[in-house]
Amino acid sequence: MYSLNVRDHFMIAHSFSGEVFGPAQRLHGATYVVDVTFTRPELDGDGVVVDIGLASQRLDAVLGALRYRNLDEDPAFAGRNTTTEVLARTIFDRLADAVRAGALGEGARGIKSLRVTLRESHVAWGSYEGSL
Amino acid sequence: MYSLNVRDHFMIAHSFSGEVFGPAQRLHGATYVVDVTFTRPELDGDGVVVDIGLASQRLDAVLGALRYRNLDEDPAFAGRNTTTEVLARTIFDRLADAVRAGALGEGARGIKSLRVTLRESHVAWGSYEGSL
Amino acid sequence: MYSLNVRDHFMIAHSFSGEVFGPAQRLHGATYVVDVTFTRPELDGDGVVVDIGLASQRLDAVLGALRYRNLDEDPAFAGRNTTTEVLARTIFDRLADAVRAGALGEGARGIKSLRVTLRESHVAWGSYEGSL
Amino acid sequence: MYSLNVRDHFMIAHSFSGEVFGPAQRLHGATYVVDVTFTRPELDGDGVVVDIGLASQRLDAVLGALRYRNLDEDPAFAGRNTTTEVLARTIFDRLADAVRAGALGEGARGIKSLRVTLRESHVAWGSYEGSL
Amino acid sequence: MYSLNVRDHFMIAHSFSGEVFGPAQRLHGATYVVDVTFTRPELDGDGVVVDIGLASQRLDAVLGALRYRNLDEDPAFAGRNTTTEVLARTIFDRLADAVRAGALGEGARGIKSLRVTLRESHVAWGSYEGSL
Amino acid sequence: MYSLNVRDHFMIAHSFSGEVFGPAQRLHGATYVVDVTFTRPELDGDGVVVDIGLASQRLDAVLGALRYRNLDEDPAFAGRNTTTEVLARTIFDRLADAVRAGALGEGARGIKSLRVTLRESHVAWGSYEGSL
Repeated sequence: MYSLNVRDHFMIAHSFSGEVFGPAQRLHGATYVVDVTFTRPELDGDGVVVDIGLASQRLDAVLGALRYRNLDEDPAFAGRNTTTEVLARTIFDRLADAVRAGALGEGARGIKSLRVTLRESHVAWGSYEGSL
Repeated sequence: MYSLNVRDHFMIAHSFSGEVFGPAQRLHGATYVVDVTFTRPELDGDGVVVDIGLASQRLDAVLGALRYRNLDEDPAFAGRNTTTEVLARTIFDRLADAVRAGALGEGARGIKSLRVTLRESHVAWGSYEGSL
Repeated sequence: MYSLNVRDHFMIAHSFSGEVFGPAQRLHGATYVVDVTFTRPELDGDGVVVDIGLASQRLDAVLGALRYRNLDEDPAFAGRNTTTEVLARTIFDRLADAVRAGALGEGARGIKSLRVTLRESHVAWGSYEGSL
Repeated sequence: MYSLNVRDHFMIAHSFSGEVFGPAQRLHGATYVVDVTFTRPELDGDGVVVDIGLASQRLDAVLGALRYRNLDEDPAFAGRNTTTEVLARTIFDRLADAVRAGALGEGARGIKSLRVTLRESHVAWGSYEGSL
Repeated sequence: MYSLNVRDHFMIAHSFSGEVFGPAQRLHGATYVVDVTFTRPELDGDGVVVDIGLASQRLDAVLGALRYRNLDEDPAFAGRNTTTEVLARTIFDRLADAVRAGALGEGARGIKSLRVTLRESHVAWGSYEGSL
Repeated sequence: MYSLNVRDHFMIAHSFSGEVFGPAQRLHGATYVVDVTFTRPELDGDGVVVDIGLASQRLDAVLGALRYRNLDEDPAFAGRNTTTEVLARTIFDRLADAVRAGALGEGARGIKSLRVTLRESHVAWGSYEGSL
């Protein structure tokens, strides 16, 4: 299996509901360094997993809808905690839709799975991985 | 699949038996930076893989039994080389027992697998991954 | 000159005033990975720059006053932007006071300068460095 | 499953064919930081995945055939783009042959799979993973 | 003193003259991950060392003149080895000119020094630091 | 000022004397990832700070005298704690002697200062910096 990874980041504010979160129930925020890994069994005709330029642009667009926002006010997350894991899944879903819609190029239709990893500090990260 | 990773470290002394180890047959030591990755198909009711506070505390407790020790004198490793791989497995077993015993919370019972990675330098690491 | 560095992190929400900040004028947040570097010309009697345990505890205490908060509501920053640079200076001032007050041990009085670096992403960081 | 990873690097010149590559169609170059991960279900008699010394030597030998070269002139890649993904596969094939030929020791015959990751910058990497 | 750092990268081909360079006398290439650190004694009116957006754009422009090129053919380096150190100095000079010309904003005129670091692998880097 | 940095590592066992060290009074060990930074105002005739090959070989030789040893038994440290800071100074002294003796080449005589940094974990490092 071949993989290609691109990295970007975004910064947001949010708060969590539930006693298990302790002081993180207060309004705070985070920088998430995002790694997106595209995987497929064979390369496309150009010898790549995906056009790295298109992949980076699309990731930037997906993160752009989250960047510099208070996620407590984003209707997409109403009634849910925007934990690292939930955000990884949201970004996965939006990128998966983009791949299926052909937004990463026709060659990208050979992509079989996607993993989205959000590094929230030097000691913790969360991810979501799924098939396309 | 969702994953969550926490990081910590410990420092030990040890020596290895077997000519294949060359100068590492002498008493020496290492810093191991430890990554523990918890994986499960669905999130718990709070929207997380595991309570990151409980996971970090339990990892600290497991590493505490190894920290600042000469592993050549630890009965748990009698007759065995405490290679990076063996230590990764040992930490895996102790954390897996903790998950099964409910020490990481009831929600953690949904964890399906665990990977323990020990980074011993900027150029080498070993890991053990298994199901719960 | 000898130096010793300890690392920790904190997560906050804030917003910036001034058109130069563009979308960062909205309420958002950040993870700051903090490096504190203590420097002195000679080591203390134990052969160290500073007791690493005391240094880490004190850093944790200083960051504890900022952690999981909306800095827009912290009176210490009233009327000022809590940029990376300003936060580095604030943490410097609070740690410098602690060193002078003897909170890092008598031996720490030999520390001559301090640098506080805040890494806000994989591509940007800010710092403040000064004499004690 | 147990894994062991060793890291090394190499620097090359090359150019790409195909409009999708934009300015990378010009002669340019790259540093690739290479991670090779060996995986197997059980450790060998010494308690390791593979002799880390032999693995590092063999990786150095495989990279030595590529180092400080213009890959556009290497017959092994005639008519193909030497993308990160293609280079990862080439290094995989050469290391897999070495494992099968016993060049990493008899114990290494228990290795079940191999992953070769090439980090080309702080924001992008590619890899190839396969069974032995 | 306050500092702010921004990071970017570029990829080039080149060769070196001189027996001391051994196999690096052949045409090869490198990825350089570039850190630019701006330093000044006091912050500007917005509470920053430099507008991070303008600094990043200018760095991108300076690197754009080098990116995806064979530096052996760049007249700016005729008769000189484009070592990591020489490239760090070149980027320093071009950014210093930009700061002096006001291209990073009027506030940036308070910048007193600049350091340009080029990381060429996980084990080596070079830098140039100077006053403005 | 120009700088060039090379990186390597070594692993040792040791123990510390003094109540301030707590559990580190027991025999334990560490991996030290070592960065050596050579600095000078002008480059040599080849356009470099120092021959990176000679610098790496010499660093390897200096670390070779420490590698895979119990430093409690090394006469060079009799009666002293081999703290990170003390080890950084020892490596500095040995490399400074090598530079002065011409072991890094005649061109290296232009080196004005040296910094040796020992990273002992992902959260702590110590260094010694001095003139030649």
